[in-house]
Amino acid sequence: MSFSYEYTIQLRDTDAAGVVYFANIISICHVAYEASLIAANINLKLLVNNQEFAVPITHVSADFFKPLYCGDRVIIHLTPRSIDSCRFEIKYQLLSPESLVIATAVTKHITIAPQTRKRRELTVSLNQWLSQWGE
Amino acid sequence: MSFSYEYTIQLRDTDAAGVVYFANIISICHVAYEASLIAANINLKLLVNNQEFAVPITHVSADFFKPLYCGDRVIIHLTPRSIDSCRFEIKYQLLSPESLVIATAVTKHITIAPQTRKRRELTVSLNQWLSQWGE
Amino acid sequence: MSFSYEYTIQLRDTDAAGVVYFANIISICHVAYEASLIAANINLKLLVNNQEFAVPITHVSADFFKPLYCGDRVIIHLTPRSIDSCRFEIKYQLLSPESLVIATAVTKHITIAPQTRKRRELTVSLNQWLSQWGE
Amino acid sequence: MSFSYEYTIQLRDTDAAGVVYFANIISICHVAYEASLIAANINLKLLVNNQEFAVPITHVSADFFKPLYCGDRVIIHLTPRSIDSCRFEIKYQLLSPESLVIATAVTKHITIAPQTRKRRELTVSLNQWLSQWGE
Repeated sequence: MSFSYEYTIQLRDTDAAGVVYFANIISICHVAYEASLIAANINLKLLVNNQEFAVPITHVSADFFKPLYCGDRVIIHLTPRSIDSCRFEIKYQLLSPESLVIATAVTKHITIAPQTRKRRELTVSLNQWLSQWGE
Repeated sequence: MSFSYEYTIQLRDTDAAGVVYFANIISICHVAYEASLIAANINLKLLVNNQEFAVPITHVSADFFKPLYCGDRVIIHLTPRSIDSCRFEIKYQLLSPESLVIATAVTKHITIAPQTRKRRELTVSLNQWLSQWGE
Repeated sequence: MSFSYEYTIQLRDTDAAGVVYFANIISICHVAYEASLIAANINLKLLVNNQEFAVPITHVSADFFKPLYCGDRVIIHLTPRSIDSCRFEIKYQLLSPESLVIATAVTKHITIAPQTRKRRELTVSLNQWLSQWGE
Repeated sequence: MSFSYEYTIQLRDTDAAGVVYFANIISICHVAYEASLIAANINLKLLVNNQEFAVPITHVSADFFKPLYCGDRVIIHLTPRSIDSCRFEIKYQLLSPESLVIATAVTKHITIAPQTRKRRELTVSLNQWLSQWGE
């Protein structure tokens, strides 16, 4: 049961080559991830502005197959998967309205205490999010 | 009959002070402007990636009254107004779900030929957009 | 004795219209402001990631006279000025290498306690920065 | 003979978690790539705003080892390598001033005709850039 999110390419996503700036495709994947957290009733402000807990990204990879233009609509399918008690990964697929694959991406995330940068166990709510949208 | 657009603050909009980076509030106004163009059946790709016609912004001003956090929802009301046959301005109001005014902004736009940077008359479709969402 | 900063336009600053995205011109002014703080020996990390003290922007206005392309070099002159014991403003002028005025901008800043969003007095180091680069 | 570039983390690079937004680390790699092109006397405006020729990125991967804060200085070492007559890749290493590895990244690039999205041979100037900064 992966999570699906629709997004319309914005002018700020593009660059002077006329298409979406490559790193912004990865940002758009993150926007879909944020939407999947909100859809699982996770309070984004509390998750992000948090002195006790952070979930930084440790790895990203992405392949770009087709250009995206301002105003284009894309559908992002994302599927999270637990790696261990502190880490998870997310697979993303960006599709055109005609279901052509525009890009794919993977991000890996780890839960830490932000002051010490030491590992922490995933929270209950992140585990619920994992089971809600995971394979 | 102004245009209204709902937006959820994304992590990429924020900065290390914990709130939305000031210039991104102006970008979010532009996202609402793009949505108002799409809602008036204007093809954004043709408008933006265009050798004959461009609509650059010549002026912006904005006042910021309240902070915005990741995950916050805002409603943007925008109202365009014709200045002359080549120029228009847009007024924006960003409201919280409780209708508190978070920020206001104004942008001024001019239609030009991008190669020469000389003025051009507004297109028929931009004039229709002006009468659709204008005062 | 205003502060001067040289900047080369980056691809991420531009959009599909082929020139710098308007809100990024304001971000580039902020980059120059950050450089002026560093040049006055202010620790940016301590200023920004601070639970006791924040300096949000309350107002911005900007006028854009000429387009900027990827790779273009600009010189930003900035001049801060105290408004009162809690507030200051900065004037920016973006010039081409040939001293043509590309854009001008003004930002207004207020010092607050970030938790309560109440006003605070400017710190000693910000007052030194004001006298170093002010008129 | 790899290319080296020094960069100071800007507020716009960070997010509300207090550190650089992950996708912006990749953008900073691209800023270093642009600087390496300029240092090889390539005109960025002509390369980017070009109807005949484009060099889109087809793949990116990155690993993030340490957080970066506003005001932090990093040194980016980049090394390009030819894959075939149409494609090249770039390896990036981001180091702290104390030579700690903060992040590594790889991008793959292909030269195409932007209208048809068909492959083209690398230009003479890009081949010179490859031999100037390549292994």
